[in-house]
Amino acid sequence: MNNITTRRNFIKSAGLLTAAAAILNPFEIFAQSRSSAAKKTAEKKLTLSWVPFDAKLRHPFTISGFTRTTTPIVLTEITWDGFTGYGEAAMPPYLGETQASVMEFLKKLDLSKFSSPFQIQDIMNYVDSVALNNTAAKAAVDIALHDLVGKIMGQPWWKIWGFNPATTPNTSFTIGLDTEEVVKIKTLEASPYKVIKVKLGVNEKTDKMMVDTIRSVTNTIICVDANQGWKDKHYALDMIHWLNERNVNMIEQPMPKLLLDETAWLSEKSPLPVIADEACQRLTDIPKLKGAYHGVNIKLMKCTGMREAREMVSLAKALHMRIMIGCMTETSCAISAAAQIAPETEWADLDGNLLISNDMFEGMKIVEGKITLNELAGIGAIKL
Amino acid sequence: MNNITTRRNFIKSAGLLTAAAAILNPFEIFAQSRSSAAKKTAEKKLTLSWVPFDAKLRHPFTISGFTRTTTPIVLTEITWDGFTGYGEAAMPPYLGETQASVMEFLKKLDLSKFSSPFQIQDIMNYVDSVALNNTAAKAAVDIALHDLVGKIMGQPWWKIWGFNPATTPNTSFTIGLDTEEVVKIKTLEASPYKVIKVKLGVNEKTDKMMVDTIRSVTNTIICVDANQGWKDKHYALDMIHWLNERNVNMIEQPMPKLLLDETAWLSEKSPLPVIADEACQRLTDIPKLKGAYHGVNIKLMKCTGMREAREMVSLAKALHMRIMIGCMTETSCAISAAAQIAPETEWADLDGNLLISNDMFEGMKIVEGKITLNELAGIGAIKL
Repeated sequence: MNNITTRRNFIKSAGLLTAAAAILNPFEIFAQSRSSAAKKTAEKKLTLSWVPFDAKLRHPFTISGFTRTTTPIVLTEITWDGFTGYGEAAMPPYLGETQASVMEFLKKLDLSKFSSPFQIQDIMNYVDSVALNNTAAKAAVDIALHDLVGKIMGQPWWKIWGFNPATTPNTSFTIGLDTEEVVKIKTLEASPYKVIKVKLGVNEKTDKMMVDTIRSVTNTIICVDANQGWKDKHYALDMIHWLNERNVNMIEQPMPKLLLDETAWLSEKSPLPVIADEACQRLTDIPKLKGAYHGVNIKLMKCTGMREAREMVSLAKALHMRIMIGCMTETSCAISAAAQIAPETEWADLDGNLLISNDMFEGMKIVEGKITLNELAGIGAIKL
Repeated sequence: MNNITTRRNFIKSAGLLTAAAAILNPFEIFAQSRSSAAKKTAEKKLTLSWVPFDAKLRHPFTISGFTRTTTPIVLTEITWDGFTGYGEAAMPPYLGETQASVMEFLKKLDLSKFSSPFQIQDIMNYVDSVALNNTAAKAAVDIALHDLVGKIMGQPWWKIWGFNPATTPNTSFTIGLDTEEVVKIKTLEASPYKVIKVKLGVNEKTDKMMVDTIRSVTNTIICVDANQGWKDKHYALDMIHWLNERNVNMIEQPMPKLLLDETAWLSEKSPLPVIADEACQRLTDIPKLKGAYHGVNIKLMKCTGMREAREMVSLAKALHMRIMIGCMTETSCAISAAAQIAPETEWADLDGNLLISNDMFEGMKIVEGKITLNELAGIGAIKL
């Protein structure tokens, strides 16, 4: 449905609206105008479609010795009653999902059996039951559904969830592993950001070089992501003490995710909060992590989307665990969706859309380093 | 604002709407029409008001040797931008709040400092911080806020939360302590209901008389609420075995709430699910109850309202605990609010409005024993 058609039908229905106003109460009128505007061009049937999309990286990205220039993405749309919701699956290669696997998964789904997009719980339980894993594919459905339902209600999800947009954290901006010279340049380029994220866990010399090089340029707060890189708890504790003297304010996944007892030992002694990333995929992981980590990093692509992410926030808070929101390399579609949860988080790493040169969406903006939510209904993103 | 004024202003704004339709997208138009309809008679300021109300009981109510014919209630309203949300505090005398204490509490609040009713989280954190306890008074604010925000979005909360209305349980209907003859009559009167709730914990003879008398009339499922009445765990287990042979499907609060270890012992051996009621007031209680009870009974008047109740549902589910929704003697205002959560519960005891003869609201209906949600925006209740 293009915009011109929408407007024409809307004017027609607005005319009907005036005539109806004398006999109906305002809520009934709004409900009716929404449905009558749509009935002419659309039907009340949930329809899911998708298209693969290669996100081009502004700079080649190196992790674990592998360099890539694109990230595979699948963009989704769910339509219902004239409304369109947008979603996205982003698949960094090391996590096992591909454009082919996502499309294969989406092909298996039949959303037409649900009478309303509001039944998000039932729909996502169904989507989750179709196959194990496939969390990015599931998130692509969940995000599009949330966008759709938020648009029907005319509100962004941060408002629907009752959050205060002023409490969003600054996003971190990631500086990848590179030579001293390049790291210096990247650090200077990162000056609009209030928090720098650096991925360590390579070896002691490289790790310290990275932090020392950044510190030679700026004293901006650093978040460290060790990506399970430190195998010995005593070494990890020494590193954390070293980092604690260098204005670092948290450590993500210092040790391998299976070393839960060692991580509990480390967290108890660590002067910095220790946050689970690889160890925390979904809601059911959180109770097991209580006592071993101070907090969890929630990412839509690993937890199946906004609904479960919102539940994870509730659970983590109830268990007095601290919360971070993270991302993959994603367009502003999934980034804006994740940002809806940001008011409830202490740390945010939502720079994925800044890393790509062909973003298909415009949405959440970083203003002076801070995640800044807009008033757009749904996930807060517009397709370009 | 009376209805005639609302309609007149609405027609005016609907006229504006048609003119505006050519230049704005539908979401902007809805947002604008909602606000322009209201601007003429109302302002964007949160205003809280309240009135005491004595709910008249259809039948005198006896608990712990005390008989009463009314329940003290305070009804609340929050207005904003031409919308009105309704709320309620219900104060059974044994819980410590009174009409005077509720009004004293509400007088302390200044909601005008919040710019939007959507900031439910901040508003309720503020309300909760003003004084300890006062949970019914806090719920009266929370319910009115939810009603208001749901009306602004034009949707009931069960939809906003993504629940399936088809999954609501049957409500239980309580049969109070009385003589054999009266219990028989009450049991016959309860025949439209699919579940009978009976309060035990008086003494063995009376407890067994109550159940035997009901069973002499019907084999309808019974939920038992022992109200902390069984002081010895072996006696409690014997009683549960006796009840298990009589089509009872759960036991609420068998032992005193402070006897957590004894309750854990009992729950492990009990053939019936053991549910916390007095032991579970608020969200923070739930993690402590894990392992000692199979589930929790959530009541708006003890947990400060719908927001925390919704969080309790998430937490209980994440901890694999079973969920019941309960109530006090309340009008259809608070009952309809509680019913929004019912799709997520296994047991519901939402008969409070059926016990009063001067209900000020019409809302959720029991249809063939089952909680039946309506499509009304907000909490799903209309003031009569």
